[in-house]
Amino acid sequence: MTFSTRIQVRFGDADPAGLVYYPNIFHYLHIGLEEFFASCCKIAYHKLMSEERLGFPTVNAKTEFFVPLVYGDELEIEVHVSSVGRSSATFEYEVKRVRDSLLCARSTQIHVCMNLDTLRAVNIPDKYRHAFELKDRSAADQRR
Amino acid sequence: MTFSTRIQVRFGDADPAGLVYYPNIFHYLHIGLEEFFASCCKIAYHKLMSEERLGFPTVNAKTEFFVPLVYGDELEIEVHVSSVGRSSATFEYEVKRVRDSLLCARSTQIHVCMNLDTLRAVNIPDKYRHAFELKDRSAADQRR
Amino acid sequence: MTFSTRIQVRFGDADPAGLVYYPNIFHYLHIGLEEFFASCCKIAYHKLMSEERLGFPTVNAKTEFFVPLVYGDELEIEVHVSSVGRSSATFEYEVKRVRDSLLCARSTQIHVCMNLDTLRAVNIPDKYRHAFELKDRSAADQRR
Amino acid sequence: MTFSTRIQVRFGDADPAGLVYYPNIFHYLHIGLEEFFASCCKIAYHKLMSEERLGFPTVNAKTEFFVPLVYGDELEIEVHVSSVGRSSATFEYEVKRVRDSLLCARSTQIHVCMNLDTLRAVNIPDKYRHAFELKDRSAADQRR
Repeated sequence: MTFSTRIQVRFGDADPAGLVYYPNIFHYLHIGLEEFFASCCKIAYHKLMSEERLGFPTVNAKTEFFVPLVYGDELEIEVHVSSVGRSSATFEYEVKRVRDSLLCARSTQIHVCMNLDTLRAVNIPDKYRHAFELKDRSAADQRR
Repeated sequence: MTFSTRIQVRFGDADPAGLVYYPNIFHYLHIGLEEFFASCCKIAYHKLMSEERLGFPTVNAKTEFFVPLVYGDELEIEVHVSSVGRSSATFEYEVKRVRDSLLCARSTQIHVCMNLDTLRAVNIPDKYRHAFELKDRSAADQRR
Repeated sequence: MTFSTRIQVRFGDADPAGLVYYPNIFHYLHIGLEEFFASCCKIAYHKLMSEERLGFPTVNAKTEFFVPLVYGDELEIEVHVSSVGRSSATFEYEVKRVRDSLLCARSTQIHVCMNLDTLRAVNIPDKYRHAFELKDRSAADQRR
Repeated sequence: MTFSTRIQVRFGDADPAGLVYYPNIFHYLHIGLEEFFASCCKIAYHKLMSEERLGFPTVNAKTEFFVPLVYGDELEIEVHVSSVGRSSATFEYEVKRVRDSLLCARSTQIHVCMNLDTLRAVNIPDKYRHAFELKDRSAADQRR
């Protein structure tokens, strides 16, 4: 089962054309990432930062926007890890509209595990690697 | 002469009603504050933070919005200090539309000088107090 | 009983000093307003805009920030109406930290009922005036 | 010659890790797009929207982040069109740090020409197609 979390599109997220300003969709994806860590990795992202001095910034993002999001939409952000390397992992994000499950946007992102003091890539700690792979496996299972 | 800086209202700043989402107006005021430090206090705000470990967060803001700002407006943000205490100072912000000099918003804010390591109020260093008062005096002169 | 809604401080809401960038606190208050309309006025704010062509922009905001908010905080946004005029109403917002109920910020805002086509103030429709006053009364009751 | 515009990283753009929150980098790219229209297509983007009822939302974005941006950086956003179709065009964005011309991020985006009333794709008007191609050619010339 892929992890998912819900987000309400807010007034301030939409632009004068009435559509969600696309940088804000990346903000939604980051909220998905934060919730993924809390739920699947059993650590609040802010504690990951303050206590372990780790972050997972995006170094590569391939994103498709299929359907404009509008103010009032409720969204489901689905997150799973599709591959894990030594110091980076590939996260798959899908944004679905709750009322009809329509896939509105999809993003494949490579996140690097970064030490926040040195700002250099470091090995992904085993506990997170394990949590990432578990998610990966369950997502793969679900698709069979 | 009061310090001023110009800002262009951007697409992403306006809301579905076509008006600048009011939290973004406070973002403009903070840009005004940053430019005030660079110009009048001779220090980039980011260096104030990194080198002197000081910040000037807002603890009180009285704000009036007279005229809605819209996407496409160019704005003049005027900043001056109206009073200086031991560890806090009162900043006056005015937002004017460039094409007709119309006063669109005004904010009076108390900023506290805060040590970023302890998150506690500290005395305003004399060099900044002096710069604040200079601005204050010149602004007062201008009004006579 | 005053209306309240919960908000999670997100990574992107906090600034390099580790504190919530204060314009984002006004974004939280607007989310509180949106939820107030949904819950107390029985209309989603986006439908108020699209179907009734009404909005409630802020024309005056007096705000105090008592305690810095940090990434990881969960917040309770409390909203009630303290007075209602012909075309404007005064909303009281309180921001409390959930873990210890500490009052972190308070804002008193005058919102004007605006027709979104003419961008002019109009009378507050009776149904909303009634809902505002109900909230007001119950909040007052609670304090006795 | 590719079009370029400068942007100052602001306090509110950076996150608790001290780096620019990546959704804000997309905001910078959109500012680059707005300035591209003003300069190369001779129309302010807000007039394109209000007078011609056209917008150019992103439907596909491939983005690489090479170097973290930090508060205090000044950026050069370079924009050119690499290909033009019937109703869409591919824009190339590069984000360079001004002080050392270091390439920090790059994004290839497909923008669709959309009628803002119907929210449907329409043919790119010839005047803009021509302006896009001119930019394309000059950029290609420059690389030889």
